[in-house]
Amino acid sequence: MRKNDVVLLAHGDGGALTHELITGLFLRYFPGRTLQSLTDAAALELSGGRVAVSTDSFVVSPLFFPGGDIGKLSVCGTVNDLAVVGAKPLYLTASFLIEEGLPLAELERVVASMAAACAEAGVEIVAGDTKVVGRGNLDRLFINTTGVGLIPDGVELGYARLAPGDQILVNGPIGEHGMTILALREGFGFAGQVASDCAPLNGIIGELLAAVPGVKLMRDLTRGGLATAAKEIALAAGCDIILKEDAIPVRPEVKGAAELLGLDPLYLANEGKFMAVVPAADGEKALGVLRRHPLGQEAALIGEVCSGRGNVYLKTAFGGTKFLDMLAGTPLPRIC
Amino acid sequence: MRKNDVVLLAHGDGGALTHELITGLFLRYFPGRTLQSLTDAAALELSGGRVAVSTDSFVVSPLFFPGGDIGKLSVCGTVNDLAVVGAKPLYLTASFLIEEGLPLAELERVVASMAAACAEAGVEIVAGDTKVVGRGNLDRLFINTTGVGLIPDGVELGYARLAPGDQILVNGPIGEHGMTILALREGFGFAGQVASDCAPLNGIIGELLAAVPGVKLMRDLTRGGLATAAKEIALAAGCDIILKEDAIPVRPEVKGAAELLGLDPLYLANEGKFMAVVPAADGEKALGVLRRHPLGQEAALIGEVCSGRGNVYLKTAFGGTKFLDMLAGTPLPRIC
Repeated sequence: MRKNDVVLLAHGDGGALTHELITGLFLRYFPGRTLQSLTDAAALELSGGRVAVSTDSFVVSPLFFPGGDIGKLSVCGTVNDLAVVGAKPLYLTASFLIEEGLPLAELERVVASMAAACAEAGVEIVAGDTKVVGRGNLDRLFINTTGVGLIPDGVELGYARLAPGDQILVNGPIGEHGMTILALREGFGFAGQVASDCAPLNGIIGELLAAVPGVKLMRDLTRGGLATAAKEIALAAGCDIILKEDAIPVRPEVKGAAELLGLDPLYLANEGKFMAVVPAADGEKALGVLRRHPLGQEAALIGEVCSGRGNVYLKTAFGGTKFLDMLAGTPLPRIC
Repeated sequence: MRKNDVVLLAHGDGGALTHELITGLFLRYFPGRTLQSLTDAAALELSGGRVAVSTDSFVVSPLFFPGGDIGKLSVCGTVNDLAVVGAKPLYLTASFLIEEGLPLAELERVVASMAAACAEAGVEIVAGDTKVVGRGNLDRLFINTTGVGLIPDGVELGYARLAPGDQILVNGPIGEHGMTILALREGFGFAGQVASDCAPLNGIIGELLAAVPGVKLMRDLTRGGLATAAKEIALAAGCDIILKEDAIPVRPEVKGAAELLGLDPLYLANEGKFMAVVPAADGEKALGVLRRHPLGQEAALIGEVCSGRGNVYLKTAFGGTKFLDMLAGTPLPRIC
């Protein structure tokens, strides 16, 4: 495989070039024994808990951005979906959808980034798939990852456990991933000042669960942002949620850019942030645990659960209160 | 959701319209309790064997064809990948990649077809994902499915078990899926005479494994067809394979069209066919089991394993012998 080559349709026909792409690229970066066996399905060792599975397709544009790329994102996104249900992520499958003509060097850069993210998260790619479509039938590269993890016995997260007084935490400043992609795509001048927060959260979440077994619920704050996640939780749990605007960490550059563009950071996507709901008595302890982890140094207690019927209120810095609903009508496509 | 509506970018933004699409369409057709819980990852009950996982993205064009559609294909393809490694398919994830503007009625037709195929195969969709990209960034609709199954204790398939004298079977005529897509796409006159063989193979494979526990290896014959699968097996097992042209079932309409177009049915894709390698003594018994199943009525013994170093030979109807290699140089993209 020469560096200046591009992906050809024949790389996806299941024949000799497909074989070359798999052995020459994918198997080189993904060294797990299970994947190397190249069977139609991978056989996994799993015991000691319930099995969790999550799937996500990544279509982010551009493919490379400050703080990450589609490869890192595709590993972190699925790892985080498993982590927030209390699972220890173990295995990933990876399916590549490639437009004919994509430079192989770009594909390799993405694959190398996936391998690094897998190593950071401690997960293994165990099965894969490659499809190549003709020019114009797909924009460059999409990746699906599906993850398998184990929920240890004793971990029981769920909407039904929420009760008035529960404290809500976030592990750091919000809106960075969404603002990064937006700035880059629209060519805004502040593009260089923000970077995606893309990161695997299973490490920090593992430490939280170990120290605070009473954690009731977690959500990663991707598409739709913090506000949409809070609204979905309130609706599913049949309670209200009050968020304190003052307490929600937002970096000044994100806040400034959002004001300029008429956007609300509460609705911007994150790829390395999650919210956790813990019993009132565990709030400070959970905050301490998060702040001791590199991915939680700016963690904050941002609100609480109240009795109610699915509303989310924001107590503003000026003493007012506003309703927060799900994201609607301002789509920023291909953010993840 | 009105029938004449189309998919909007906002259906993929993670907000209110996404919520409407999930509850109004996907949850209506996929009624499993696990999916309905709408958590970030599904929790599965799995015990009594090793866990198998397989992933596949489907990009077939056109979306609808005689014998199936992208929805049926996306279920059968992954079910079959699990079945040929000896697993009982149990759970699927489904990720939809949708071009803005796709009529919702078409999406619903695909989803309904997936639900029917899931019912036929006895599998449940437990997790999902939807991405919508702008017009021109993707051709209509792609679907990724990832499957989880259980390999029962005692089932041990693998290349290493192959030995000279082993018999090779196929469960019916080859080349139908590939020829159907080709005919439809190129507007050939015989398009109405062929139909895809798209079908879930876990039923017939389950009966084969129950009756003939000595089965050594199976492969489904998708991209690259029978010849490519045989070559991959020969290379991985370090043996030769001899196939008898006379014995390989091909429908006259497929054979005729292939001759006309200068194509070889041995390299055309199938979506409801598999090959099985069994010990010499089990050949006839396995044939009988396959022929008693609706998906194996035209099953045949088509060749055998010989000592060697990875070559595949075809004994032609005229008494000659030719080498078969992997598919190379004649890509027919977006066939699955």
